[in-house]
Amino acid sequence: MAQQEEDEKYMSLALIEAEAAAEAGEIPVGCVIVCDRRVIGRGHNLTETLSDVTAHAEMQAITAAAQTMGGKYLTECTLYVTLEPCAMCAGAIGWAQVSRLVFGAPDPKRGFGRLAPQALHPKCKVSSDILADECIEKIQQFFQQKRL
Amino acid sequence: MAQQEEDEKYMSLALIEAEAAAEAGEIPVGCVIVCDRRVIGRGHNLTETLSDVTAHAEMQAITAAAQTMGGKYLTECTLYVTLEPCAMCAGAIGWAQVSRLVFGAPDPKRGFGRLAPQALHPKCKVSSDILADECIEKIQQFFQQKRL
Repeated sequence: MAQQEEDEKYMSLALIEAEAAAEAGEIPVGCVIVCDRRVIGRGHNLTETLSDVTAHAEMQAITAAAQTMGGKYLTECTLYVTLEPCAMCAGAIGWAQVSRLVFGAPDPKRGFGRLAPQALHPKCKVSSDILADECIEKIQQFFQQKRL
Repeated sequence: MAQQEEDEKYMSLALIEAEAAAEAGEIPVGCVIVCDRRVIGRGHNLTETLSDVTAHAEMQAITAAAQTMGGKYLTECTLYVTLEPCAMCAGAIGWAQVSRLVFGAPDPKRGFGRLAPQALHPKCKVSSDILADECIEKIQQFFQQKRL
């Protein structure tokens, strides 16, 4: 499978996680972590449900993936997330030594690109704009419905 | 009580947390969060024990404090930690809107000052070098014992 096609496949799974967040009344961000074409961790934003700012999609997925792998390093893994990670999540992605990060929509205000550009592991490869329209649309829909 | 004296008192409690980390075989970093002179959350590094890079002292303490407060924002709180927070923890401290951060020893390599200088909330006040010698000594002792 071509890289773009594979990335879109896993980003679609991250979007399913984002939908689960929306259904729980959370800002819809979802994440999956993939190792050898196997999903080893999933997560979606649960900050309101858990009253915990640390409960971002990526954090849940990293914790889950480490449990699956039986170790805290995710060196051969790709993390897919629907929104550009924040400084906190980029820091966690860095500590876990995730080898590739793929995100959907950019987050110019709170994204790590602005707030923590050096937080990732230096060897981590980054791809963006994968299903970006779907990823940002899900967040916009969520806020539109909140205003109704 | 003068500010310096109060800061040293709470940093001593963070050092007790750091000692608990050392006893568990973890790099000794400890954290307490204080609101109205009451400790509302504590934590120590548990990354090895939990096989989870997200299990830093500050993350545990923020989660605990939010549970104590019944809400995810820690706007009137001071977070004391024995080592300068990393990008991940600074991001979490930022999301939680912690109003004051006090750290012991600086971490020139992995500290947020270098990796994520904008991750804290813009209104967060920062103090450093509180019991810094004790804080760094605890970490140095840990690594010296590991080498024996």
